[in-house]
Amino acid sequence: MPTIVVEVMPKAELLDPQGKAVAGALARLGSSTFSSVRIGKRFELTFDGPVDDAVLAEVKDIAETLLSNAVIEDVVGIHADAL
Amino acid sequence: MPTIVVEVMPKAELLDPQGKAVAGALARLGSSTFSSVRIGKRFELTFDGPVDDAVLAEVKDIAETLLSNAVIEDVVGIHADAL
Repeated sequence: MPTIVVEVMPKAELLDPQGKAVAGALARLGSSTFSSVRIGKRFELTFDGPVDDAVLAEVKDIAETLLSNAVIEDVVGIHADAL
Repeated sequence: MPTIVVEVMPKAELLDPQGKAVAGALARLGSSTFSSVRIGKRFELTFDGPVDDAVLAEVKDIAETLLSNAVIEDVVGIHADAL
C-alpha cells in the first residue's frame, strides 16, 4: 500500500537540546566532523488508493494541524515513499 | 554548510503505540483515508566540507550505533540534503 512520508523539524531559530546532546556525544566519541545535530520527526502514513493531489492536500493539512506544532516546528517535507 | 539527513523508523514488526494514537486521532477527526501511521526520527547533521564517501560512511556508522537502537529501529535513509 502506498505510504506518504511527512518530515517535521524544530524551527531553525529554536534551541534543540536533544540535538545538542547528540552533538556533544559525537564529540566525546571522537567524531569532530559535525558542527551541529538537529532532531525532528518522520511520519509514515499508509493508505489504500492512488497518490493523487487530493490525498497530498489532505496530508498537508494533517501535517500542519495534527502532526506538527506550528509554533515550534516546521513541516519540511511531504513525499510519497517508493516502498 | 552541507547537511546530511538520517531517517530512523521503528522496526516494521514492532507495535508503534504513538503511531496508533495518531491514527486514532485522525479517524476521530473524520479522516478515514489512512490505515496506519508510524512515527520515527529525522536527524540533520551539519558539517563543514564536501559530502564524500568518507563522510557518508562515518554517518552510516554513527546512525547505526548512536542515532538508532538496532534492536527496535532501522535506519531507513541517509542522504545529503540540498539546503
